[in-house]
Amino acid sequence: MNTATLYAEFADHLRGLGALDQVAGLLNWDQETQMPPKGSAQRAEQCAAVARAAHALATAPRLAELVGLLEGADLDPAQAVNVAEAGRISRRATRVPAELAAELARASALAQTVWQTARESNSFADFAPVLERVVSLKREQARCLVEGSETPYEALLAEYEPGMTEAELSGMFGRMRPKLTLLAERIAGSGWRMPRFTGAFARAGQLALSRRLCDVFGFDGQAGRLDLAVHPSSSGSGGDVRITTRVNEYDPRECAYATIHELGHAVYEQGLDPAQALLPVGMSASMAVHESQSRLFENQLGRGRAFCEWLCPAFGAQFGATGVDMPETFYAAVNLVEPGFIRTEADEVHYNLHIMLRYDLERELIAGTLDVADLEAAWNARFLADFGVEVPEPRLGALQDVHWSAGLFGYFPTYALGNVYAAELNVALRAALPGLDRMLASGDVWPVVEWLRANIHRKGRLLPPAKLIAEACGRAPSEAALLDYLGRKYGALYTL
Amino acid sequence: MNTATLYAEFADHLRGLGALDQVAGLLNWDQETQMPPKGSAQRAEQCAAVARAAHALATAPRLAELVGLLEGADLDPAQAVNVAEAGRISRRATRVPAELAAELARASALAQTVWQTARESNSFADFAPVLERVVSLKREQARCLVEGSETPYEALLAEYEPGMTEAELSGMFGRMRPKLTLLAERIAGSGWRMPRFTGAFARAGQLALSRRLCDVFGFDGQAGRLDLAVHPSSSGSGGDVRITTRVNEYDPRECAYATIHELGHAVYEQGLDPAQALLPVGMSASMAVHESQSRLFENQLGRGRAFCEWLCPAFGAQFGATGVDMPETFYAAVNLVEPGFIRTEADEVHYNLHIMLRYDLERELIAGTLDVADLEAAWNARFLADFGVEVPEPRLGALQDVHWSAGLFGYFPTYALGNVYAAELNVALRAALPGLDRMLASGDVWPVVEWLRANIHRKGRLLPPAKLIAEACGRAPSEAALLDYLGRKYGALYTL
Repeated sequence: MNTATLYAEFADHLRGLGALDQVAGLLNWDQETQMPPKGSAQRAEQCAAVARAAHALATAPRLAELVGLLEGADLDPAQAVNVAEAGRISRRATRVPAELAAELARASALAQTVWQTARESNSFADFAPVLERVVSLKREQARCLVEGSETPYEALLAEYEPGMTEAELSGMFGRMRPKLTLLAERIAGSGWRMPRFTGAFARAGQLALSRRLCDVFGFDGQAGRLDLAVHPSSSGSGGDVRITTRVNEYDPRECAYATIHELGHAVYEQGLDPAQALLPVGMSASMAVHESQSRLFENQLGRGRAFCEWLCPAFGAQFGATGVDMPETFYAAVNLVEPGFIRTEADEVHYNLHIMLRYDLERELIAGTLDVADLEAAWNARFLADFGVEVPEPRLGALQDVHWSAGLFGYFPTYALGNVYAAELNVALRAALPGLDRMLASGDVWPVVEWLRANIHRKGRLLPPAKLIAEACGRAPSEAALLDYLGRKYGALYTL
Repeated sequence: MNTATLYAEFADHLRGLGALDQVAGLLNWDQETQMPPKGSAQRAEQCAAVARAAHALATAPRLAELVGLLEGADLDPAQAVNVAEAGRISRRATRVPAELAAELARASALAQTVWQTARESNSFADFAPVLERVVSLKREQARCLVEGSETPYEALLAEYEPGMTEAELSGMFGRMRPKLTLLAERIAGSGWRMPRFTGAFARAGQLALSRRLCDVFGFDGQAGRLDLAVHPSSSGSGGDVRITTRVNEYDPRECAYATIHELGHAVYEQGLDPAQALLPVGMSASMAVHESQSRLFENQLGRGRAFCEWLCPAFGAQFGATGVDMPETFYAAVNLVEPGFIRTEADEVHYNLHIMLRYDLERELIAGTLDVADLEAAWNARFLADFGVEVPEPRLGALQDVHWSAGLFGYFPTYALGNVYAAELNVALRAALPGLDRMLASGDVWPVVEWLRANIHRKGRLLPPAKLIAEACGRAPSEAALLDYLGRKYGALYTL
């Protein structure tokens, strides 16, 4: 058989796997937004069945055979990446028994429901047994996956950030942590009291503003949808990208910035190469690259001084007086820095400290040096050390995030890495688009979307994540850009 | 290995298949209610991938082997049915190539989108090419499935109504048709003009009334949901049963009775044996038995004189004056008989004539004696012959139903058979519950739900469909009960 025929068979097989991944994503979205409470047991079975089917496709001997036949063949760069990625997927899947893959999907679907209830009743003890089950399955999965000199944690991390090591992350976090802590302390010590939003902000108005933001940030409403949910999220790809946002009637920043954040993810997914749909090259490069898109939208753009020229009057048009009715005060109010318990509500300065806490704890959970039974206490001790405050109740502490219940160990550090990448992209963007602030001030984000389309979105997985960022930015990414950005921005805001 | 171990492995395998069927149902519900327009291409791939995975499970040699090992074993009746059903599923699936199964799922998912657009633009020509594709795939599937003396159409019918033959259906329809036509003519000739609803009925009020009906008819809101959609439907099972209804602001009957109809389906699915969840015995007996539940709720109960004592004031409480404010006139208004173009809006007298038209045309499509190119003309000619009216536009004719685009050939006749079963169940119910009309007049449907639970729902597939109805009713079902019911009811209403 010639290469074209082999590749066609290979791509068809791989698209089936991509389609099942989308189905798994949809089951999750539906569970979060639509599913009735008593549906959770059978939903777990559905997730397990889809995971098992995906595992069967990924481990099919024919796929490995096709990869072997195509590895040396004369392929274009996109095809070569699809073959290489398929090899990686196939090898990783083959190391995990089908029953473990199915059981992981089943257990984490169930654990999410239990986590939700435990969070509502504010009881870590209610959550601990299912989390123990998930952690034990993840340890087992990590043991299966480990390759070469990888640590078990790195084997899980590779699912989200291929090629990244604990040494690199820990080194970067180690350099960032004292600087972030120092910046937070200087801000706290500055004595500045920032302006705050006052009044109540109707649900409908916040949703209407979110829909306006969808238009501004280039979201194609025919290829996606926006819903309200308990947790902001983005899921799906290509022609069907779904974001959820949430409303806090006393703090309109939450909904607006959650929406802008999710739009970064969503516009990335809508901007992938449709010719490579359902194939690795038509997928996002990594979770850190994903997060760089959402954080760039949310922070460097959305919380930037220029965009406040547009967003402040947009708030006014929607809500009337907000207590922060001038762009300058609006800018200060949306960049308020103060230690808080909840990661998703954290300001830019504290955010990465939240991540480092989780990164360290989850590495210990996977390594087996921390038991789930001791997790709540470990969390609270670490939080006190890093933020100087006692965690008063588990829903403000170890129960706040869905990730661990969903089995997403190795996912958290990609958030901080995404922040690092976002700061690099911001530098590159400003060099590429000299009139950027003027555009943002008039609500014109389209040139940014186009630049990201060309430099990030369309490229999918053509390059490894760090290389993709390096090519887009003209230099290897480091945390220096982020620290510099934070130092300048908050130095000015708090006149440090 | 002992029987218990073998059966456990067998049931586990089969539950995976049941879970994938539920996933396919969810993909469909989502497509109808949530999916953005541009999601349709990848949704087709998702449907194909799930169909392929289900096909792989159904055709797994190990399943056939387990069935073989268990067929003679010492099993309880439910286990024996699961084994027998699995054998049937496995044999049927094995006769259909995987690629055809996937292509059918893909083509019908795509065709539904095209059908929707064609219906909106009222152009049968826009729909014809995709329908041709679906019909040609269904013919191929039928050729693969045919067993023994079956006709190709029967091979498709067996998916919805196992054991039913064309001869039996055609015989029954042949006996019913002249009697229904005569009854319709006598009603038309009676000169009676029935009272009608007047005014406009707000969307929100109709939805609120639908939610009330959910409670009345025993729907567990924690194990399901109700949404508005273009087409009323019921999907899902067990702990997650979803119904949709639709609002006509000028005719409140449509929403209320669509809801009651779907509740018949939904309460059946919620009432299946949870211990047999995802296994054949824990599934509905057949589509005709399913339809018997919805038609019984909708017609014999919901459109009955007694329930109007409750429903008429419920309408009044929701909408104020409706133009039919006494139970007696309300009863007449919800039982108005007149020829119409749309099956789903048809009265009880005309409904089965709509079915027979479709049954005859789809048999010809599958047999290859009618081409899709000639379908519209054939439909219009038959409609004129049966209803005495010219079809003015395709959306009132051959474009009105989703079924053919979805590949559901062999499904339509189960609606008429369901009507026959519903009439039998109505006789049995009234014998079993002597005070039934008094209960219905006060909105107490629960004793009916309990009777159905015990006699139909819980039994799942323990018995073949006709036998299940026969056991519940104490006699073999025939069309006589339906014709008798219609003759009495409409004879009295129209004083024939």
